[in-house]
Amino acid sequence: MLDLIAFDADDTLWHNEILYSDAQERFQDLLAPYGLDGRARRELYETEMHNLHYFGYGTKGFALSMIETAIRLSEGQIEASEILEIIDLAKGMLSSEVRLLDRAPEVVAELAASYPLMLVTKGDLVDQERKVAQSGLGPYFANVEITSDKSEDFYRALLARHQVAPERFLMVGNSLRSDILPVIALGGHAVHIPYHVTWAHEAVGAHGGATREYAELEDIGLLPMFVQQLCQGDGAGDS
Amino acid sequence: MLDLIAFDADDTLWHNEILYSDAQERFQDLLAPYGLDGRARRELYETEMHNLHYFGYGTKGFALSMIETAIRLSEGQIEASEILEIIDLAKGMLSSEVRLLDRAPEVVAELAASYPLMLVTKGDLVDQERKVAQSGLGPYFANVEITSDKSEDFYRALLARHQVAPERFLMVGNSLRSDILPVIALGGHAVHIPYHVTWAHEAVGAHGGATREYAELEDIGLLPMFVQQLCQGDGAGDS
Repeated sequence: MLDLIAFDADDTLWHNEILYSDAQERFQDLLAPYGLDGRARRELYETEMHNLHYFGYGTKGFALSMIETAIRLSEGQIEASEILEIIDLAKGMLSSEVRLLDRAPEVVAELAASYPLMLVTKGDLVDQERKVAQSGLGPYFANVEITSDKSEDFYRALLARHQVAPERFLMVGNSLRSDILPVIALGGHAVHIPYHVTWAHEAVGAHGGATREYAELEDIGLLPMFVQQLCQGDGAGDS
Repeated sequence: MLDLIAFDADDTLWHNEILYSDAQERFQDLLAPYGLDGRARRELYETEMHNLHYFGYGTKGFALSMIETAIRLSEGQIEASEILEIIDLAKGMLSSEVRLLDRAPEVVAELAASYPLMLVTKGDLVDQERKVAQSGLGPYFANVEITSDKSEDFYRALLARHQVAPERFLMVGNSLRSDILPVIALGGHAVHIPYHVTWAHEAVGAHGGATREYAELEDIGLLPMFVQQLCQGDGAGDS
């Protein structure tokens, strides 16, 4: 039995990484005239990692890292108009229409009828709130948690705050690093639904260092059946 | 009697606006060679307001607005090195030491002994979490809420979520607009402790359109006595 099912949002319920990929491509094009075609994306990633403890996750920090990288790599040759273009790129990302993943709304609605649902997402507050509102899925979630990081400590505190035992908690998400590994380390249940693009920072090796089992589903549409089986399995074990 | 006392953080418990004032001054100096001395701060504010629905509150959006304003006002003449300086300015703000207001730690510790306390603050997640951790005040607060906006709707939802009646809630803060007016509009208690600098966006007229009463204290050191009197007053009313 489950007392709480939590969903990651970006690339689990709606498309997100694709916005970043598109922006990175545009960034690469922007720097191509400066002879930096091959290095631009890799250097941007380095800058992002270096800036993570200042900026955290989200589009605003991504934009600042793009500007910093563009100036550094072009040795100050980048045009002011091109920097404005980077800022516009960020604004475009921050106002882009939310595109739900196939079957995500039906699955969320179905599970919400039987379980308390929570949304747990990293990123910028205003941006994530906008996406929740625009997705139309907000009413299905009893709680929306926007967090700076999804560490084991974060999940431990989250479960304590909501008085949920780890073995009665299920987390659903596309990131092994953020959604799966910390949850199973705590003794919780986790379902991994890979997205076709994973940000390098979220990628971990094939087994991801998991010491306990987690499920992997190809499609969110398979989730209700999985949850049913999980709860029946628990029930059988109890009897 | 009170079931919950909530504190604003920036410029209520620790200095914040001073970081922005210093950055604005540096921004003005940066643009002075382009003959824009007088307009720089005003134009920056206009840009910030225009960008608020993209970026929300906090230093990252402030930095992006500074860069945008600098490029636009200098008509693209601003040097790349000066844009990097703006990014460094932001990083400096995001890693600056937290400076607690006089008597804030003692007052928080004293009230925490008798009431559940909550911290309610706008801004960037990572930055606010860092400041809470660095302030050393975290353990006194049962909850820390970092929000994109402090509207009447926000406070209504907050009180509902924590099952606190407005008349048993006290909010303490330096902003009439964000900490006081929405709370008294709901029927809650509010204590205004002005800070010597107020961001233009948070400033409202002398009476701020308040239809109910709120208290104004000169110094956070006066808060415990005010709370005691408020609760005694309530007690007398009940008997």
